[in-house]
Amino acid sequence: MISIDIVLLWLDLAGVFFFAVSGSLLAARKQFDILGSVLLASIVALGGGVIRDIIINDAPPVAFTNPVYLLPPVLAALLVYFLFSSVQRFTSLLTLFDAGGLALFCITGTLKAITAGMNPVAAILLGVTTAVGGGLLRDITANEVPTLFNARDLYALPAFLGAGLTTLLWHLGLFSGLTASVVAGVVFVFRVTAWRKGWYVPLAVRGWQRTGVGSTGNPGPRD
Amino acid sequence: MISIDIVLLWLDLAGVFFFAVSGSLLAARKQFDILGSVLLASIVALGGGVIRDIIINDAPPVAFTNPVYLLPPVLAALLVYFLFSSVQRFTSLLTLFDAGGLALFCITGTLKAITAGMNPVAAILLGVTTAVGGGLLRDITANEVPTLFNARDLYALPAFLGAGLTTLLWHLGLFSGLTASVVAGVVFVFRVTAWRKGWYVPLAVRGWQRTGVGSTGNPGPRD
Amino acid sequence: MISIDIVLLWLDLAGVFFFAVSGSLLAARKQFDILGSVLLASIVALGGGVIRDIIINDAPPVAFTNPVYLLPPVLAALLVYFLFSSVQRFTSLLTLFDAGGLALFCITGTLKAITAGMNPVAAILLGVTTAVGGGLLRDITANEVPTLFNARDLYALPAFLGAGLTTLLWHLGLFSGLTASVVAGVVFVFRVTAWRKGWYVPLAVRGWQRTGVGSTGNPGPRD
Repeated sequence: MISIDIVLLWLDLAGVFFFAVSGSLLAARKQFDILGSVLLASIVALGGGVIRDIIINDAPPVAFTNPVYLLPPVLAALLVYFLFSSVQRFTSLLTLFDAGGLALFCITGTLKAITAGMNPVAAILLGVTTAVGGGLLRDITANEVPTLFNARDLYALPAFLGAGLTTLLWHLGLFSGLTASVVAGVVFVFRVTAWRKGWYVPLAVRGWQRTGVGSTGNPGPRD
Repeated sequence: MISIDIVLLWLDLAGVFFFAVSGSLLAARKQFDILGSVLLASIVALGGGVIRDIIINDAPPVAFTNPVYLLPPVLAALLVYFLFSSVQRFTSLLTLFDAGGLALFCITGTLKAITAGMNPVAAILLGVTTAVGGGLLRDITANEVPTLFNARDLYALPAFLGAGLTTLLWHLGLFSGLTASVVAGVVFVFRVTAWRKGWYVPLAVRGWQRTGVGSTGNPGPRD
Repeated sequence: MISIDIVLLWLDLAGVFFFAVSGSLLAARKQFDILGSVLLASIVALGGGVIRDIIINDAPPVAFTNPVYLLPPVLAALLVYFLFSSVQRFTSLLTLFDAGGLALFCITGTLKAITAGMNPVAAILLGVTTAVGGGLLRDITANEVPTLFNARDLYALPAFLGAGLTTLLWHLGLFSGLTASVVAGVVFVFRVTAWRKGWYVPLAVRGWQRTGVGSTGNPGPRD
């Protein structure tokens, strides 16, 4: 039987790789150089976990102590460097890889919090923080309005679902490599479908219409 | 007699609520959705305290362990969602609620640092960091030039005043719920008056004139 | 014989001062006020070290406990306020001071990590994080695309070189005030020469041409 630690490590590394590719793709679009590609990949891939480890006071963060965590960002930057010639589907690719990272990190982040002894509500919050934190750092660093706040699709909701399901399964004693994979699949499909279908939740003010993210053409936001 | 811990908790929660409203108002202006409104409210309301708790190594931060801290951001997002139809005074409202958070956080942040055993200078610094940290994260996350750096009014100075007065009162043995309220009132009135009257301190270079925040029309800043 | 701790403290303070000047210069260009100048100087000068201390769990960070670290940002803001009238060479000055901070912080950050017991790879990573962290925070806070990602010159590579040399010298038992100065000189000259000569590494995607940082005129990055 495979121990839960091994399952967690592999899920975590897979999530790190997916997020790293999203970072290198954004670096490519922003015309950063290959070293900037490695750095942005590292920030998105390792940032969420570093924030999590600092918050649960599990210092120093595993990203700094276990060198295996450095391979995915380097690999991601090389992949994008050599294979990213067809740029037609840039946004699609970034969204897919980002969704993969999101789906895995909301699980591993939640589990790390649970095994660190945090209560269920805190564990869910920390899982979501881990899952959305890296992408938030990526977008802030690259001087973009964070995907997290894109009002035309759903980003945080799938992460909350995954963190909630993980906490539930754990407390029911049903968490395993198999059920974790199912949760990851559900979160991934939910996130990608929301993006493709343009699912969304209401805007921050009742009755306002979407006029474009970041635009200011609404009923009145003076400023 | 009410214990200082209870006073602190209530002041802290009130500050969390005020900052949360400022976050939801900015989310509304940026046309984020209702979930983005909750998230931005959480970032501004809890961010300063999380930074403070990480710096004094009081882990995990109270925002993650005490679920009561999650209510203000949710409440703030709901309030803005249902009540924010008159958008004429958007900036005024944001500034007022932000000033409320600032006035309370420079007190509670300083006190947490003092009771964690830090020296007076460090306590003042940490109080200011707590007070301005959340708003800084809010503006960075929403891809705005931080209010903290708006050269047309005063933001950090009232926070320094509040943190300094709190430290002074504590070491004189005069800190209480009453004196804390007076300090909060002074900081709030100072901040809001500075904003309304357009008080300011000199620019970063002697002799330069204000030509608009973020503009580059001055005597010479090449590139 | 001067102890290594004294050498480290002075190198660290010099790095803090250089970075602080870069922050005040950027504050001047962005037309922040004198207080914003002190704050941005503090963020760039102390930010990298605070991140480092949080990661190695050396809390509270020295910037908050040793008041001597507050002098350089204040001094830097005053210097820029009184002396910065010839604005013709703004970018040059910022780059030179930033390079000075980078050269010193990649050494002191690496050494702090080594003496905290981290392995060589982690020490190098943490040295680089310390060296580039403050500047990254400075640029993010001021709402600029970080210098770190400027594809027209080299920024992270000199920091990696300095952190690597420091780790090597330490493990060979050759680290001293003298060798540290040589490493700092090498990193500084490397960084400044790369900037003046426009040295660069390839872009994040093979075959793409530079069309200007942040522009989107390349072969195809849709949206």
